[in-house]
This record gives sequence, structure tokens and C-alpha cells, in this order.
Amino acid sequence: MSAWNRAALEALDRDDPLAGFRDQFYLREGLVYLDGNSLGALPRRTMPRLEQVAAQEWGEGLITSWLGAEWITAPRRVGDKIARLLGAEPGEVIVADSTSINLFKALTAALSLRPDRSVILSETGNFPTDLYMMQGISAFSGGRVRAEAVAGEEVLERLGDAVAVLLLTQVHYKTGVVRDMAEVTRRAHEAGVLVVWDLSHSAGAIPVDLNGAGADFAVGCGYKFLNGGPGAPAYIFAAGRHQAAAMPVLSGWMGHAAPFAFEDGYRAADGIERFLCGTPPILSMAALECGVDLMAEADMAAVRAKSLQLGRVFMDLMDEHCGAFGFALVSPREDARRGSHVSYAHPHSYGMMQALKERGVIGDFRDPDVLRFGLTPLTLRHADMLEAVLKIRDVCETQAWDDPRWAVRAAVT
Amino acid sequence: MSAWNRAALEALDRDDPLAGFRDQFYLREGLVYLDGNSLGALPRRTMPRLEQVAAQEWGEGLITSWLGAEWITAPRRVGDKIARLLGAEPGEVIVADSTSINLFKALTAALSLRPDRSVILSETGNFPTDLYMMQGISAFSGGRVRAEAVAGEEVLERLGDAVAVLLLTQVHYKTGVVRDMAEVTRRAHEAGVLVVWDLSHSAGAIPVDLNGAGADFAVGCGYKFLNGGPGAPAYIFAAGRHQAAAMPVLSGWMGHAAPFAFEDGYRAADGIERFLCGTPPILSMAALECGVDLMAEADMAAVRAKSLQLGRVFMDLMDEHCGAFGFALVSPREDARRGSHVSYAHPHSYGMMQALKERGVIGDFRDPDVLRFGLTPLTLRHADMLEAVLKIRDVCETQAWDDPRWAVRAAVT
Repeated sequence: MSAWNRAALEALDRDDPLAGFRDQFYLREGLVYLDGNSLGALPRRTMPRLEQVAAQEWGEGLITSWLGAEWITAPRRVGDKIARLLGAEPGEVIVADSTSINLFKALTAALSLRPDRSVILSETGNFPTDLYMMQGISAFSGGRVRAEAVAGEEVLERLGDAVAVLLLTQVHYKTGVVRDMAEVTRRAHEAGVLVVWDLSHSAGAIPVDLNGAGADFAVGCGYKFLNGGPGAPAYIFAAGRHQAAAMPVLSGWMGHAAPFAFEDGYRAADGIERFLCGTPPILSMAALECGVDLMAEADMAAVRAKSLQLGRVFMDLMDEHCGAFGFALVSPREDARRGSHVSYAHPHSYGMMQALKERGVIGDFRDPDVLRFGLTPLTLRHADMLEAVLKIRDVCETQAWDDPRWAVRAAVT
Repeated sequence: MSAWNRAALEALDRDDPLAGFRDQFYLREGLVYLDGNSLGALPRRTMPRLEQVAAQEWGEGLITSWLGAEWITAPRRVGDKIARLLGAEPGEVIVADSTSINLFKALTAALSLRPDRSVILSETGNFPTDLYMMQGISAFSGGRVRAEAVAGEEVLERLGDAVAVLLLTQVHYKTGVVRDMAEVTRRAHEAGVLVVWDLSHSAGAIPVDLNGAGADFAVGCGYKFLNGGPGAPAYIFAAGRHQAAAMPVLSGWMGHAAPFAFEDGYRAADGIERFLCGTPPILSMAALECGVDLMAEADMAAVRAKSLQLGRVFMDLMDEHCGAFGFALVSPREDARRGSHVSYAHPHSYGMMQALKERGVIGDFRDPDVLRFGLTPLTLRHADMLEAVLKIRDVCETQAWDDPRWAVRAAVT
């Protein structure tokens, strides 16, 4: 029997130093949203800011807002704000494009620094776009670059003279397992290998210390724990020491040393700006900045402490209330190895998640059989964990997954 | 003496079949905005739609809106709408990324169809990002691909067995010169060369007939004549006949045949979806759709007729009122060769444009000495041409360009 009855959880919520953040978001009454790791909730400040950008900056200022409303410096400005969440310096992070595109930039930049090596290494089961972007580079290289993925536990053994760059995700999208960034980076560097870290499930979720780990490159998305809105622009980190030599293959005009000189020849900008490519989507950028500003107000140590506690509470309650229903914990039980989501495998996971959504609990289904529950400390209460688990129990008791509406999986889950 | 006195121009405005569109935009009183070819004006319908997307679809629907609010199909849905403006079929255009990124996709796709050829050809003075993206591909190819730019009038002579793909802009960003898409494409195909057309200054500005011209690939931006908002997502066209064989190097998860199967290996989607890469910015996408919907309500023949007339009126008035002040017309006077902007060279063009902005006339300065005036038929009145030219005359008569505030050019113009 767990100690987490409703009174105990509500006591935790009363003492929660982050409790005030919940009111900073728009959240539908009665909903338990355990998917902030797929799409973060809407900060209340975002809508007024979007109105300002559209009506005043675009509508009134028109083209002059590129300078007058500082649109042109937004990628760097928001990048510097994100840098503070990642243990990076100002000028080491810039907001641009999507995570996929930034993976391409980071991997090709790393390859340009290791011209005598040919392998991009990653792990099987990494988030698909990471693997796919590697494969695209390899295909285009005409055999010069090889994309190789090995089982996660074999990655460090595979490091060697042929490997130019290692691409890993710090917090695994499905299992929530956290990689030891400092240790992996150290081992890679010993082998002369550069590392690209995918931080999509890290930024705003766990403390990240890129420079403390000696990281080379990193990428991540803005729409999960940073609450930047659907398809928010992504970011890329390039360690200051690499910037002068790392050549971006995606050499668009916004990354030029003098974009408005309209020269015929590409000259990369001196610093992180060379990782820009085209014109950034300003409306989506403005929403991202609102989410990042809000996250910057939270103490990351408190965020991590609450995230871990939410995870412990959730797993304890699952043991207590749903232990008989055939769930297999996919995520690590040990705090140090777990990010900010908890996943279970279950034979009826697809239908179960649909039934849960109808009951006001939103999480993710991940192929083939994983239920993923994101635990976002700025929006969730400890008591929400009990609400969610009781709904899961109800679905199991009634076998509500067994509904003809869910016989065919939607292509998008 | 031109026939364009105020009464005559106001008579044209009364008879203008497109006059009603002006009220569909937010336009500041007293402003003559001749820069809709850099950033289109704000459609009145956009702000309410943004509120709906943010507050309802994101705020209420959260992650379920990817399906429930049809975010996931937005790139294709808006692409199909743009296709109608370009003489393309549904399924040949998709909205994604920036123009620069789409140039990379189109050029590498074309290269994949011409594996035995090595040159990407373009013209000097093309829009810089077009040339820069070519150069990045060449640098990464390790000598396999060569980027070559020759003077515009020599492009067709240079076609030959070595050339894989020709990259040209249909309407030149600086001069407004229109290329004959059908003739150039025909000549290129005779030499076995594929063509990528940059339509950034074409879509919504002049009638475009991609399939009529037998075009192979095209790209363009959403924030100019399509009024999609600052940094609106761009689009890419791939002729149906090429889609099955053209491999996108930027092989992100959104272009996978089954993105949510989370497979380790990339399998390109069957159709135009393979030209997607990462997750699209939904807020900026929604604004783009509003602009495209509005443009789709206009008759393109009427748009072209008014655009040309605005150009003739503007040039006649410049002759009449500013003929003595040293302007050199950069754009073609012949209708058939001119797009929807008119440019002049002038030794004091930078300071002149700053002085004009202070007087409520907004155009562009383009390095080194060009004043560019965009003529957007949905928002401009014929009488605005007289307003603008009288302000230009005033600046010339007072030599208002000679102001210490403009002694140093801003980096962004």
C-alpha cells in the first residue's frame, strides 16, 4: 500500500515551490495532461504577445519591424535565453528551423571537423528523425560517409578511428532513460570522436550542462518542455571553440556574414549565426520566446526535484492500483537514470490510450506497445497523479480498450 | 506631361475590379506601402484565425489537435491551395521549411535524377540564398558537384552534358525582369538539364504555369505576395513524374512513409510528402493559409493586368515628376518582361529610402544603389502611385537623403 492517498498528495501540492506556475498556463478544467513532453501547454502570456506581433509589429510596422521590432535578432536573442537552460554561453545557441534540419547542420559541421573519418554513429531505437537524417547524409555523400546504428549498450565500444561523430539523445524519447552526458562525451573525445546531443526531451525537463560536459554540438525542439507551441522553431548549440572551423552545409543567406550585402559568394558569419539558414517564422518564434521566458523563471533544481517526485508518486500509484493489469515498466525506477516521463508497455496500450483520452487523461501511445506519460513540473499537481492512475485502473477494469473505434490505429498517434 | 492626374487615377480606382480587396487588409492610414514584395500586409482574417489556433486548437485541444484540428495535413492542404496559383496539380506542392531549405531539397533531388552529371548552373546576381545553397551542396559533395554561375544572358549557351540542373528565379528580385519559364525549360530539357524555378517574386504576383512549362521543381516563399506573415513557411513543387525517383537528402521523419511507426530506417513517403522534413510551425502555417486563401479569391488575370497598369502609371509619373533627378530605370518598361515591382538606380538611394519612409512611403533599398517599389494589386490604389511619386519628388527637391542619421547603412535593409 503506497503512502500516496489524496490528502498526502494535496499536502505536497500545498508545499510545492513551483505550484504558482500552473496559473501561468491555460489548462482545461478537469484535464490531466501528461503529454507536455509532446506538446507543452499554452502559457497565458503567449496569446497577448501573438496579438502584439501580428497586429502591431506586422500590421503596423510591416517590413520595418525586422529592425524596429528586433525580428532580425530574435534567433540569437531567444537562443541566448535557451543557452542559460543548457549550461551554454551567450552566442553558443541559436534558434532556427526544425530539430531535423539542425541535426543535419550539426552532423555535417562535425564531419567538416573530422575530414579523415567517415562514420556517423548512433544507437538503434534512437528517435527516428535522428537516424533518418544520418541516412540522408550518407546517401548523398556517395559512400564517403557511413551511417551506423548499434545497440545502445554497444555504442561506447564501437568508438574508434573511423568514427567522426556520435549522435545520441540525452533523454530517450520512449524509455525516458538519461544518458550520462559528461561520461559519454569524455569517452568519445578520448577516441577523437565529436558528439551531437539531441536535447529534445532534456531542455526544461532536466538540468543540462553542455559546457560542463565539454559537449561539441547539440540540437533540440521548442515545443515540448519549453512550451513554445506546435511546431515551434528548434535550436542548435555549437561550442564556441568549434564555431570558426565548423562549416554549415545549409549555407543560406541568414547565415551569411553580411546577408544584406547581397554578395554572390557565401561567407559564413563569424559566430553561431552561421547556423542560420533561411528567414525564421516570426509568429512561431514569438510564441517560443514566451515559453522560454516562462521556463527561465523556474529554478531548474526545483523542476528536477518535482519531476522526479512526480515520477516516484506515479510509479508507486501504478504499483498499488494497477499492479494486477499486466503493465511492464519501461522507464528506469532509479531517479538518476530517469528523465521527465514514465513509460509502460502493455498489450492493449493503443486502445487504452484512446480510452484514457476520453476520460480526460492525455498521454502518448508509442509504437508498438508503449504508453508514455510526460510529467511536466510547471503544470502538474501531485494529486493529478492519483487522478490519472485511477482512470487507468478504470480503463483496465472495464477493458475499455476493446472498442471497435480503435480497431485500426490512426496514422498519427 | 502624363495623363495621370489625380482625377484620372481616382477614376481608375473606382473601376478597379480588385478594389474591394484593400479592405480585407489592415493598412495604416496615410501609408503608401510599396514593399508587399518583401513582406505582404496583414490580412484582417489572420488575427482571428491565430487566436483560434492558439486559444482553441493549442490551448484546448493540445496534442490531439495534430489530428483533431488537422495540423498534420496542413502542409499538404496549404500546398494544394498554392498549387492552384502555380499551374500545378494537387499533390505537387507542399508547404515546408524556408525557401533556402527547399532549394537544397529541390537541387539535391534534381541531382539524384542526373547521377551522371555534376554541375548546378545559375546566373550571377541571382538572389543570394539561391547561389549560397548551391555552394554549400558543392562544398559538401567533396568535388562531385560543381556550383557555377554565369551572366544571365549566357545561361542558355552554357547548358550541356555536364549540367545536371539549372536554378533560375522567374522574376528577378532586384530588376523585376521576368524569365520565359516555358522557353527556358524547353531549352534546358533539350540539353537533358532539369530546372529548379525560384518563384518567390512570382506566386501571387504574376500568372505561373508550372505544368504548362513542363517544369521539374520549384520553390518559393510565403511572406511576399502571398501575405503569409513574417518568415512564413515556404513551399516546394516537384512535378508528379519526378516524385517517385527524386530522393530528398533532408530525410526527416515527417517525410517518412509512416512517421509514427518509428522505424529505424528511412523510407520516403510516396508523393510530395517526402519533401517534408521536420515538424512544421503551426502558428506561422495558419497565418500563411489565411494569406493564400485570400489570394485564391482574386482572379490572377485581373491581378496581372492591374499590376502592369500600376507599373506603367508609376513609371510615367516618375518620368513626369522626377525625370530631372538622376534616376535610372532598372526594370523593363515592356509589360511582358516586367514582374510586379519597379526598380530605379540612384546615387542617393539608401538615404532616399530612409527619407521616404519618414514621409510614409515604404519601399526597399537593395545594395548597392537600387530603390525597389513593390506593386501589390490587392492592397494598392492607382492614386497611391501619385502620392508616392510626389513624395519622391519632395525628397529629391529637398535633398533629404543627405541626413547624418543615414551616413552609416543599417546592416539590415
